[in-house]
Amino acid sequence: MTRHVWFNQKRFYRVSKTASVSNPKEPPFAQGAYSPRTDLAVEAHEMARGPEKSLPGVDESHEDLEEGIHISRVHVRTVQAERRIGKKKGHYVTLEAPGLRHRDPDLQEKVSEKLAEELNSLLRLKENATVLVVGLGNANVTPDALGPLVVQRLFVTRHLFRFMPEIMDEGYRTVSAVSPGVLGITGIETTEIVQGIVEHVRPDAIIAIDALASRSLSRVNSTIQIADTGIQPGAGIGNKRKALDQSTCGVPVIAIGVPTVIDAATIANDAVELILQQLKHTVPGNGANKIFDQMNPNEKWQLIREVLDPLGNNLIVTPKEIDEFVEDVAHVVAKGLNVALHPGMTMDEAAVLTH
Amino acid sequence: MTRHVWFNQKRFYRVSKTASVSNPKEPPFAQGAYSPRTDLAVEAHEMARGPEKSLPGVDESHEDLEEGIHISRVHVRTVQAERRIGKKKGHYVTLEAPGLRHRDPDLQEKVSEKLAEELNSLLRLKENATVLVVGLGNANVTPDALGPLVVQRLFVTRHLFRFMPEIMDEGYRTVSAVSPGVLGITGIETTEIVQGIVEHVRPDAIIAIDALASRSLSRVNSTIQIADTGIQPGAGIGNKRKALDQSTCGVPVIAIGVPTVIDAATIANDAVELILQQLKHTVPGNGANKIFDQMNPNEKWQLIREVLDPLGNNLIVTPKEIDEFVEDVAHVVAKGLNVALHPGMTMDEAAVLTH
Amino acid sequence: MTRHVWFNQKRFYRVSKTASVSNPKEPPFAQGAYSPRTDLAVEAHEMARGPEKSLPGVDESHEDLEEGIHISRVHVRTVQAERRIGKKKGHYVTLEAPGLRHRDPDLQEKVSEKLAEELNSLLRLKENATVLVVGLGNANVTPDALGPLVVQRLFVTRHLFRFMPEIMDEGYRTVSAVSPGVLGITGIETTEIVQGIVEHVRPDAIIAIDALASRSLSRVNSTIQIADTGIQPGAGIGNKRKALDQSTCGVPVIAIGVPTVIDAATIANDAVELILQQLKHTVPGNGANKIFDQMNPNEKWQLIREVLDPLGNNLIVTPKEIDEFVEDVAHVVAKGLNVALHPGMTMDEAAVLTH
Amino acid sequence: MTRHVWFNQKRFYRVSKTASVSNPKEPPFAQGAYSPRTDLAVEAHEMARGPEKSLPGVDESHEDLEEGIHISRVHVRTVQAERRIGKKKGHYVTLEAPGLRHRDPDLQEKVSEKLAEELNSLLRLKENATVLVVGLGNANVTPDALGPLVVQRLFVTRHLFRFMPEIMDEGYRTVSAVSPGVLGITGIETTEIVQGIVEHVRPDAIIAIDALASRSLSRVNSTIQIADTGIQPGAGIGNKRKALDQSTCGVPVIAIGVPTVIDAATIANDAVELILQQLKHTVPGNGANKIFDQMNPNEKWQLIREVLDPLGNNLIVTPKEIDEFVEDVAHVVAKGLNVALHPGMTMDEAAVLTH
Repeated sequence: MTRHVWFNQKRFYRVSKTASVSNPKEPPFAQGAYSPRTDLAVEAHEMARGPEKSLPGVDESHEDLEEGIHISRVHVRTVQAERRIGKKKGHYVTLEAPGLRHRDPDLQEKVSEKLAEELNSLLRLKENATVLVVGLGNANVTPDALGPLVVQRLFVTRHLFRFMPEIMDEGYRTVSAVSPGVLGITGIETTEIVQGIVEHVRPDAIIAIDALASRSLSRVNSTIQIADTGIQPGAGIGNKRKALDQSTCGVPVIAIGVPTVIDAATIANDAVELILQQLKHTVPGNGANKIFDQMNPNEKWQLIREVLDPLGNNLIVTPKEIDEFVEDVAHVVAKGLNVALHPGMTMDEAAVLTH
Repeated sequence: MTRHVWFNQKRFYRVSKTASVSNPKEPPFAQGAYSPRTDLAVEAHEMARGPEKSLPGVDESHEDLEEGIHISRVHVRTVQAERRIGKKKGHYVTLEAPGLRHRDPDLQEKVSEKLAEELNSLLRLKENATVLVVGLGNANVTPDALGPLVVQRLFVTRHLFRFMPEIMDEGYRTVSAVSPGVLGITGIETTEIVQGIVEHVRPDAIIAIDALASRSLSRVNSTIQIADTGIQPGAGIGNKRKALDQSTCGVPVIAIGVPTVIDAATIANDAVELILQQLKHTVPGNGANKIFDQMNPNEKWQLIREVLDPLGNNLIVTPKEIDEFVEDVAHVVAKGLNVALHPGMTMDEAAVLTH
Repeated sequence: MTRHVWFNQKRFYRVSKTASVSNPKEPPFAQGAYSPRTDLAVEAHEMARGPEKSLPGVDESHEDLEEGIHISRVHVRTVQAERRIGKKKGHYVTLEAPGLRHRDPDLQEKVSEKLAEELNSLLRLKENATVLVVGLGNANVTPDALGPLVVQRLFVTRHLFRFMPEIMDEGYRTVSAVSPGVLGITGIETTEIVQGIVEHVRPDAIIAIDALASRSLSRVNSTIQIADTGIQPGAGIGNKRKALDQSTCGVPVIAIGVPTVIDAATIANDAVELILQQLKHTVPGNGANKIFDQMNPNEKWQLIREVLDPLGNNLIVTPKEIDEFVEDVAHVVAKGLNVALHPGMTMDEAAVLTH
Repeated sequence: MTRHVWFNQKRFYRVSKTASVSNPKEPPFAQGAYSPRTDLAVEAHEMARGPEKSLPGVDESHEDLEEGIHISRVHVRTVQAERRIGKKKGHYVTLEAPGLRHRDPDLQEKVSEKLAEELNSLLRLKENATVLVVGLGNANVTPDALGPLVVQRLFVTRHLFRFMPEIMDEGYRTVSAVSPGVLGITGIETTEIVQGIVEHVRPDAIIAIDALASRSLSRVNSTIQIADTGIQPGAGIGNKRKALDQSTCGVPVIAIGVPTVIDAATIANDAVELILQQLKHTVPGNGANKIFDQMNPNEKWQLIREVLDPLGNNLIVTPKEIDEFVEDVAHVVAKGLNVALHPGMTMDEAAVLTH
């Protein structure tokens, strides 16, 4: 990097709120083989297990509901499995409902209910438990705004229980909620902010909401993952460095995430894989075949990097209608959360809150 | 209150994000005499001192700058004075620049510079001091959005010093910034959130930005108050209950506030005072005169309450162009802060950040 | 006005988007007597008729619905009545539902239905009629944003009928919608923009949505006025100069308005009136009484102007929770409109659109 | 398509504001060979001319400025050339400044000045010419918001010249501006709305601002194209069907566009091209080589479609920091426009307006 670019780079970091925080002297891409990024355990397992049914130490099961919802359950049981699929030990429940992309109101209702149900079975909150909801992400970047949008639609009650207890009925839990903002705007890691708040609010559990990246386009905006593992570094659209989980927060952290983007590198990688696969069948001779097999992951990754240069691995792919999708999904998640956290809330109250 | 209204009231509090938190069974107005609300010490002193030059225990001085900026300095020295004017012991500097309402770019620049200067002389930061800026208020309510708007325009550096120290030059301090949101959305008092963050970030000082209410229309959107007393309960447009100051945070808290509204009750009160004053001169006879003097504060307040019924004391008065004013003032404050906190920053860098 | 102020004033108008357009050399207040401003015909009639039941040429009737909705119908029948109450000849239907301020979901639903019903009976659209909805006001100023917020929540179909007719079912009308923006941002009067669009779109009717000012606080955010007279100059929160009605647009223009503010002058005036009334009873002697009666409207208005100086008659009074109120009312109006315009639309489809 | 999907599809179009308007029964991709989409003439020429210096009927020249700005000028002179490169006859000036991605304030200033200069030389406005600026695109979708963001930052004067001519000085032109909204929200084609407004405002020229798609990542957010050809169907991020140009509007239409996205299909295509090129060199034997050459465009396109399935060709690629980029570029364009349209405006007035 020349001195001039370096100077501009410094200046850029000085004036940019959302530039990824990484050493600008380092190459913008990871070295070595490319592995498409996914924040969904069901996809990570799929990639890691290859043609096998499952990896050792991982249980996976599936269920198809009548309403057009598919539920996958991935249980990462061992540390070895954790390392191989790159997802923390724990339970991951994925609700897939392609119809969510079609704004079907009945389906939205069903998904909210199912989400509440699965959340309850992962979290098993006591009747009088207190919960802190954390909306991660940047409210100003449409596909990253899921967390803040959900927080705005929640029924928070902690202040009501404190200052106006006489207005609260049975069936409501003590809920508080924050949108801590992103590192580029606060200068503080999300986990640090949340830790500080947790020490004062002392919730029995944390629910963290985040926009995710998936590996497959078919899961974008149609999938909700619920995990009892918290949020791990590198997950979500922004860059997080410190885990937000039981070990850092001292209480269980449930993560609810929705893939709203895929990496541009994934698109490029898919194209490369597909053409190599196709050529294997068309190009005659064993020699050719060998070459396709020999094209090692590093070479492929090198190629992808060339495609994405000069903007580096900082590109996201998103549908044009992303604003509508994110609003809709925020609505679905918030409604599910409101009903799960407040068993006494009627659906019409939940509806007013979330519109 | 009938049972039905009470039920609706409960429901309302359950579904409203911004309803003031106060016991709905209590009358919406304070009892006793009305005293127009102001968050500006210079106005509180003015009201308390009456025709005197100053109250015992309060120093006040004034300075007129060439550029059309008037500076008042109020020093509340004793606890007695604190009680009488209702403002905490400490220093309050007020910059008044009526021209700010006319979008004069030269004046804006001057006010930013003056703000930086006064801030520096109140705060006396060491070269390598670390600062946390807190943007109070509700980003969704135009006249209350000042704090969050300023935070968005700050140059935060804490993460850069941590993760990319090589890009930072001399002349930059470690700055972080949060917009904790309002009680109705988080369920958590702002002070609790800030305390938690302070324990992790461990800043040497806190600067809190808030939209204020003034007593006089002429100060709306044209005045900036800087105080070394922190933020006190009840100040600002929203309702805060717990002080954000050195006693709760452990480090000095500078408050920067701009009046963006006045209470509707103040307008009504002004009209009442003005007419009583005028009638004293027109209505003949001593008897009449006595009656005007006897019209005691409680009666006047009762009258004002009648005017504001049924919406209670929850009404604000604001110019129609409030969105432009708030944007402009946020710009002025942020530029002043950036330059005060980062002596090494050039004005053109500050300009890019704040647009 | 000194040259300097005049210069600043010029500059201000040059750089301000929302400054009212009026000759800055003229006094900011109208001369003569003050008459509290209202955009509601039912209030204008109330003020004009005094203790009488109604003015000649005006019919007024009332209806109380079980659900807590009060309906007033004012019919201004003659040009003489039009002049006296300052509202155009035509029908004005007002739905008042104080419960709207309490976010009661059942009531919201009822008001939407009632709005649809009244709209249908004023408009009597043919089955295949085409409608243009115009959302007036400034999306960036919370209490003036009603029109643009409603437009965002409408089900527009004109493009679907044109380009994808096969997806449209019976029971849907051809609807288009625009938010033309305000004079300070476009430089073009709203009516000119709408006229241009009407010539191309050729709708059978126009529905214009606007935020209004009422004379009474009790009607703010709890009242919807539907009128078959179009929008007249000076109505709404912003300043409009040219009528948007059948005479300028060539087709019927229905106006739907919700008061979201009252003028600060109204508050001051109310306080003055109330105290004069009260003093009449307390101050002894006929002489005094005469004085109160003699205090003529011009003197009162002079007094109010003193109260509002220096910001002029450009101040609005609004509840702190205005963002929630406006969102909720936009939802209610949009739902009512969607159902009125598309008889084939199910309520759950309408719900998805409006959240 | 099964009946059920078809039903959902209908419902989706009925409730979606931003779904592309195209027959859902047709395949989501164009048939035949894929040609990467670009709205930049300089890229279209590059692709069409292949290794040649230029196509017949097209002139292209380049200039490098000291400040890090590269200017390309493409002149499409003939109808034949128009057809071959798919861009209308006329002049296209492209300013490329990679440094724009680094928020360099000096460079931003330079680009604004250069933009003003090039605009003036394309438009040659008379001193008292009147101009209508049209901000195309959807304000709610970050990468498509450029047009509306620029309009908000313009100095519009038409109403001032009309209603307050005494405040206007020499050196200001009559400027008006609209953001007509997108087809999915209005139901009306942008061109129809603009035509209607033009008939009332009667400007001497129109300047249309739009977000574009480029073919090359290196041009995203760092390039401004100015064209005297107006906007053609299919350009921009949204879908437009009817040209906005002199033939439809009756006056010259200058288009100013900035690429903020590239199509996901372009990324996939690039990856495919790159790997085919590479394999040609590695796979031995003439037979293999032939195969790579024979892999015809249709086959490649088929492959890309497989990659992008199931979301179809509706995916955009954008950097994560898109919100900052778009704000910055809107600032640069608005400043350039303000200075070009109002020679009398000082730079500090322009700065207040655009922050």
